[in-house]
Amino acid sequence: MSISIDKIKEPVKGELLDFEKHFREAMKSSAPLMDKITYYIIQKKGKQIRPVLVFLSAKMCGTINPSTYVAASLIELLHTATLVHDDVVDDAYMRRGFFSVNALWKNKVAVLVGDYLLSKGLLIALDSQNYNHLHTLSTAVRLMSEGELLQIEKARKLDITEDVYFDIIRQKTASLIAAACKAGAASVTENLDVQNQLWLFGEKLGMAFQIKDDLFKSLNS
Amino acid sequence: MSISIDKIKEPVKGELLDFEKHFREAMKSSAPLMDKITYYIIQKKGKQIRPVLVFLSAKMCGTINPSTYVAASLIELLHTATLVHDDVVDDAYMRRGFFSVNALWKNKVAVLVGDYLLSKGLLIALDSQNYNHLHTLSTAVRLMSEGELLQIEKARKLDITEDVYFDIIRQKTASLIAAACKAGAASVTENLDVQNQLWLFGEKLGMAFQIKDDLFKSLNS
Repeated sequence: MSISIDKIKEPVKGELLDFEKHFREAMKSSAPLMDKITYYIIQKKGKQIRPVLVFLSAKMCGTINPSTYVAASLIELLHTATLVHDDVVDDAYMRRGFFSVNALWKNKVAVLVGDYLLSKGLLIALDSQNYNHLHTLSTAVRLMSEGELLQIEKARKLDITEDVYFDIIRQKTASLIAAACKAGAASVTENLDVQNQLWLFGEKLGMAFQIKDDLFKSLNS
Repeated sequence: MSISIDKIKEPVKGELLDFEKHFREAMKSSAPLMDKITYYIIQKKGKQIRPVLVFLSAKMCGTINPSTYVAASLIELLHTATLVHDDVVDDAYMRRGFFSVNALWKNKVAVLVGDYLLSKGLLIALDSQNYNHLHTLSTAVRLMSEGELLQIEKARKLDITEDVYFDIIRQKTASLIAAACKAGAASVTENLDVQNQLWLFGEKLGMAFQIKDDLFKSLNS
């Protein structure tokens, strides 16, 4: 609320502008309907917190380089894919004040677009031989989907303790933020201690974000 | 119909038995609900045409080795993930005579399980450093999702020519079969000509399969 996102972005403003061109290119498809949808997704783009964290983490630990851009593209493609899949998952018909892809094109298309974005992210990482980014990201996807399922299971039983709540949000929300920070660091240093510290930082940040989000939700319900 | 699947499997029977243990292990999750669902998916497993093609292609071009098993696991995880996602996509409530995952646990879970399986496949390939398999597979996923979207777009316009039909089935069905044959070959030989020939063989086989499937569907409707 109080601290402006522009102020946070300031140290990596130039890189973010370059990144946007990068990312637009990365989403291109030969299928016209796919192109129309990804264009629409880019239009309603959010705060780009995750790429910002990739660039900030990289700059903090070393010198931003092409591998940092790959990490940022990969994280943002993955995040976008999971948002599109979340639209199915939550049956959400509005997102960020726009109608969701799901509402406009239905579940069928949402799943396909999500899968397409995942595969594009993969190919970018493979083509540039950034295998460590891929490993970080696949781990995040595994944790996220397990966390969501854990939530479904536990929510049904109505017996969530604080520990279980922390487990769930650590997996479903914090793991991608953690991956963003770690991948940023990994793009500039091979020091595993530093990379793991950045993962932990991102994990705490992601959990704080989710706690705040859940508190606001329960205040408004 | 007339040629028995057992006869086709015969040359790689032993490898398929080993593979099944492999695959069961690969699907394991720390989330109990995830485990329950993947167990259910394994129970109603299909003909395993894709792993069979991986092993046959490998045996035809060289000597089956651990990389062949990785390729087979990867292809089958991916195929299972796309089946689970297809259940959302097609709103299909029956598959192979069983109720689909979607019908039992709804879209929410189907998307998550599909994503989980994709990430598990990724991690297996990354951990064993089988990057070329990953490249083959990501290309297949990209082609499949684009092909499905192309079909949605074209079907709406009701102006499908034979060429467009072939384009669609080449992408949406044949690319994963092609990937299975190519990955099998790639696990035993570095000869790119041979690998590409196997891709083309799988592509023709996949297209033939889809044409037969579409013909039966139109005969029954």
